[in-house]
Amino acid sequence: MSRSPRMPASDTRALWADVEPPAARRLLLAALDAFSEHGYFATTTRDISQRAELSPAAVYVHYPSKAEMLAEICRRGHAEVLEEIEVALQVPGTPTERVRRFVQVFSSFHARRQTVGRVIQYELRGLTSDAFRAVADLRARFEHLIRAELRAGVETGEFDVSDIDAIGVTVLSLGIDVARWYGSASERLTPEQVGDLHADLVTRMIVASN
Amino acid sequence: MSRSPRMPASDTRALWADVEPPAARRLLLAALDAFSEHGYFATTTRDISQRAELSPAAVYVHYPSKAEMLAEICRRGHAEVLEEIEVALQVPGTPTERVRRFVQVFSSFHARRQTVGRVIQYELRGLTSDAFRAVADLRARFEHLIRAELRAGVETGEFDVSDIDAIGVTVLSLGIDVARWYGSASERLTPEQVGDLHADLVTRMIVASN
Repeated sequence: MSRSPRMPASDTRALWADVEPPAARRLLLAALDAFSEHGYFATTTRDISQRAELSPAAVYVHYPSKAEMLAEICRRGHAEVLEEIEVALQVPGTPTERVRRFVQVFSSFHARRQTVGRVIQYELRGLTSDAFRAVADLRARFEHLIRAELRAGVETGEFDVSDIDAIGVTVLSLGIDVARWYGSASERLTPEQVGDLHADLVTRMIVASN
Repeated sequence: MSRSPRMPASDTRALWADVEPPAARRLLLAALDAFSEHGYFATTTRDISQRAELSPAAVYVHYPSKAEMLAEICRRGHAEVLEEIEVALQVPGTPTERVRRFVQVFSSFHARRQTVGRVIQYELRGLTSDAFRAVADLRARFEHLIRAELRAGVETGEFDVSDIDAIGVTVLSLGIDVARWYGSASERLTPEQVGDLHADLVTRMIVASN
């Protein structure tokens, strides 16, 4: 599926300024856009080099393989959302306030960084088993963090939650699916509005009624 | 990406017994499994014929193109879930009871028919524009149905919902994402338990507190 060079997706142009040299960054962003648009398996290294307006050989100068580009995108994407969550949770607060902040960050990320979100959520089947394990470790940290916050609220009596693991899955699920629907639904919410909406809904799902 | 014949996914083997002749059905189920596993763009007609243990030419005897197979899968998948919802909503009930039934059917479908769910939710970008429009019409009917039920509960005062469209998107989103996470999460819920969990959570999201 060869194609002419094209502009990167609007939410990816400014990403990952730390990737050096500039040709490596252009290739990584071209891979990100191509994987998001057509899927990892359907993208060739030639598609990537054409999007980056570089020669096909340029890919291998900077990356050993297409799989390594996917692994790098997944590492960076997961590390970014994890860092945003950890920053949000550094501020003390009630369990409700802390869960709200988790949800706001996690759901708005998948709207603001939709292209990254689509690749890190839907293209994991392209990872090698080593790369998958590294990403699974990062994902286990999200699950651990949300469960810890839910448990804290159950302990104070603020939350009425019968199955912490299942609610944890649901909270992450709501945020992850934003990467699929955002921009296509008739709803025109900003990423921050998506975060606030989900925070309100999750609060109603978990807070004890009296 | 040619591959040896393999068993169909466990949730697809018994599907679509009405597709005739049997070779057409085997091809359609092989396409379903292949699209779910590797994505539409990365699947060749040769992959499909090999999975169905038929010659490469057999595909074109029964289907004009790979795109037509995707369209047929999407039509059938959407029609099935829509039919399940319509049956569930034929029974009268309070707005809460009716929304619960909608959510139970929609969320459990995406667990029980995970392979179908993955294709009809994540492979739509492979549809031709005509086929996409037909599927978009079916999807608009889900949205219309859930909004009508939410509106009914707001009118009786049973629901406290500030933005019916946004809650409608959220209800569908919860169900759709089941096709991604079901079976991979540490949670081991049956499809019916997923439906009940989501019905409980959506009820808490929407029911007025006094």
